[in-house]
Amino acid sequence: MPLPTRLPGQVDDPDIKATYAADQSIAAPPVGDFTLVRARDLADVVEVLTEAQAHGTPIVPQGARSGRAGGAVAIEGGIVLNVMGLAGVIDLDEVEGIAVCGPGTVTADLKAAAAGQGLFYPPDPASVAYCSVGGNVATNAGGLCCVKYGVTADHVRGLQVVLAGGEVVRTGRRTAKGVAGLDLTGLFVGSEGTLGVVTEVVVALQPAPAAALTALATFDSLDAASRGIVALRRDPHRPSMAELLDAFSIAAVQRLGDYGFPADCAAVLLVQSDRAGHTTQDVQRYAELLAAAGATEVAVADDAAEAEALMAGRRVVSTALEGYGARMVEDVCVPVRRLTELIERCRAVCRTRGVEVAFSGHAGDGNLHPSLFFDAADPVSRERAEAAFGDIVDLALAMGGTITGEHGVGSLKAPWLVRELGESEIRRQQRVKAVFDPAGILNPGRVYPP
Amino acid sequence: MPLPTRLPGQVDDPDIKATYAADQSIAAPPVGDFTLVRARDLADVVEVLTEAQAHGTPIVPQGARSGRAGGAVAIEGGIVLNVMGLAGVIDLDEVEGIAVCGPGTVTADLKAAAAGQGLFYPPDPASVAYCSVGGNVATNAGGLCCVKYGVTADHVRGLQVVLAGGEVVRTGRRTAKGVAGLDLTGLFVGSEGTLGVVTEVVVALQPAPAAALTALATFDSLDAASRGIVALRRDPHRPSMAELLDAFSIAAVQRLGDYGFPADCAAVLLVQSDRAGHTTQDVQRYAELLAAAGATEVAVADDAAEAEALMAGRRVVSTALEGYGARMVEDVCVPVRRLTELIERCRAVCRTRGVEVAFSGHAGDGNLHPSLFFDAADPVSRERAEAAFGDIVDLALAMGGTITGEHGVGSLKAPWLVRELGESEIRRQQRVKAVFDPAGILNPGRVYPP
Repeated sequence: MPLPTRLPGQVDDPDIKATYAADQSIAAPPVGDFTLVRARDLADVVEVLTEAQAHGTPIVPQGARSGRAGGAVAIEGGIVLNVMGLAGVIDLDEVEGIAVCGPGTVTADLKAAAAGQGLFYPPDPASVAYCSVGGNVATNAGGLCCVKYGVTADHVRGLQVVLAGGEVVRTGRRTAKGVAGLDLTGLFVGSEGTLGVVTEVVVALQPAPAAALTALATFDSLDAASRGIVALRRDPHRPSMAELLDAFSIAAVQRLGDYGFPADCAAVLLVQSDRAGHTTQDVQRYAELLAAAGATEVAVADDAAEAEALMAGRRVVSTALEGYGARMVEDVCVPVRRLTELIERCRAVCRTRGVEVAFSGHAGDGNLHPSLFFDAADPVSRERAEAAFGDIVDLALAMGGTITGEHGVGSLKAPWLVRELGESEIRRQQRVKAVFDPAGILNPGRVYPP
Repeated sequence: MPLPTRLPGQVDDPDIKATYAADQSIAAPPVGDFTLVRARDLADVVEVLTEAQAHGTPIVPQGARSGRAGGAVAIEGGIVLNVMGLAGVIDLDEVEGIAVCGPGTVTADLKAAAAGQGLFYPPDPASVAYCSVGGNVATNAGGLCCVKYGVTADHVRGLQVVLAGGEVVRTGRRTAKGVAGLDLTGLFVGSEGTLGVVTEVVVALQPAPAAALTALATFDSLDAASRGIVALRRDPHRPSMAELLDAFSIAAVQRLGDYGFPADCAAVLLVQSDRAGHTTQDVQRYAELLAAAGATEVAVADDAAEAEALMAGRRVVSTALEGYGARMVEDVCVPVRRLTELIERCRAVCRTRGVEVAFSGHAGDGNLHPSLFFDAADPVSRERAEAAFGDIVDLALAMGGTITGEHGVGSLKAPWLVRELGESEIRRQQRVKAVFDPAGILNPGRVYPP
């Protein structure tokens, strides 16, 4: 049934609408039309969700469109409800150690606001400079910090959410502790817009760590890199970052500019410590551990500029790989000690399927992002990449892992969810969803297969 | 409808049954009979939940019976399903940084198992020596560590749960990250046995901290103590403990033995640092901050024995207060900077009601445990204490706080839940409960009023 009225914040310009139709995944925007709303405030969100429920219109909650899983792509005949207009840090209390912000706040801006008070909001997806806190909440985003600081869910204390039909609810707490009733916060975090539209986020902040020091270890075999990762996990002071890049990713980064990465190696590990008073000592110890594990070379960044160049290199991996054509970005996560085994087995899959692949990932967490390249103009090439994508998901499950570590299920991985959770669990989760969204208008077809 | 068969693990000895009828709260055990099952394994739990669902028999999931909110007290005609038999650390993987244990594992035993591998499971309720991990999960227990390390929910990665009807489900993950589908782990943690019976807990472990060093600050006014708490919250290295005891609690502790606490003061703050390489430096700095805030004396425990005596004193507060008669233990939590204002206002309430009161609590979190004393043989005395209990809950809500920081709602606070959450939210949570427990057999009347 068509919506009878113009919605608040609705935008009709077709060029603008086109930019809001898709995210950073390969999920295709709809062929037909959709309605775009750029909400300006809570009232807009309430009105849109009230109208949408009344008319059974699908809603796609949307943030910065930096998603990798197709969770925020427009649905034909539906409403894209973009909440980037609900931006900004509303409150920051350094005694209570909390910040309250709108979902459209760019993650880097929240981190900067915290840093301005000597505090720290740890989550740092690679897209930190442009992704949104609301999107991070929707996918329970991770990033580079997780090996020490955990994922977004570990730092969200409460939410304001608008449900289908327009009811505004609060979850969680602002106090340091609170156990009155069920904690629905954890249910909403990672629910990918299927339960409600987040309109305010309360996060916990912690004291700021020291400026990080970085080491770069070069390996001529994945086995040696794997031994290095295990050695780091056993250290009494866990690194604040432990990232892996394979030769393909390194070459791609270095093609963009000299970020200080070596040529002719199997992989590098990029490792940091941010422990106040101990960064030099930690990184030196990590260097020794990695050398003992079989690194051919370990370089410690002597100064902030050198460390920043390496980090900048890590952050441009995604951009660098875009130079090689269309790609599907995988996001499986396995037990940490099996990460390089996963890489070897992915390589075998890609050889069999005839697909070019680059590996990078959060080695300290066992969270890998294989990039599978294909020719967007060649359906056979795309099919091969999709087949390899599916094989890798199956591999991860067989290795005790998950189909998605931090990007979410979205539309791309919905067909695989049942393999991880089973039919009974999916039915149960859909019954939970029905409590919050009885008409099923919130992001239908995402996470759970249509 | 009566159960037709004997249940596995059923115990009929009336003396044994009597010890399983109640917890550590003042909630009364049932007048009539109930069935006691001491489950020995998962199969027992499955069978009991299958039979209970078939016959509509209420189930009270139960652990170490150390609860303070009456959440695990027997229900007349129901089944007490005690899971202390499902004890022990099943797996501890120092590379992945996880442990898997049964719900009947005593929290101190899990902590010791982690420490044996150089790792750390932070949660430490004051009852750590005898409470269970399953009970901690049920109430989302806190403790002394929370000012730095957060609550139980922050350390639980996944669960195995048996639902009403006997279905065994797994939630969460074993990998460092994982976002496939809704995270039901956070929903079960703190659900106080209303959604299912936890039969296995996967916790995240972190590298062990240093042995803590302790400082004791004496204050002759609550205002000064409050300034001290705020100063600690602003320090760049948050203490691993910040506990407050009032004069009454101190005198009670010292009556048991000389634990090193001062006489003639308004309150003390007991503060620790466990930061490797910096405990001396941190505690010295805390001492200076507290002196500047107005502490009349600050003593740093010079050695482990002195520190241990102070900690032992903190841990016996509850036992010490039992010497003063029957008591109701409050558990409200307010913004940290309002803690001593809460104490003043509680005192006024108790003066008006004619109730004797002692205060201790987790000052660094704004989580207070007023003990309200009454004469168990005098109904009027008990009514006065109950009235003060209610007044304090109302006070906390009016101050932006919560009715329960860490003990749970249980049966004692169920009447107040609606004041914190509202009718609409309670109805929604009951619909969520119905997804997992459609017949409503799991801990009926607890958390949500009958």
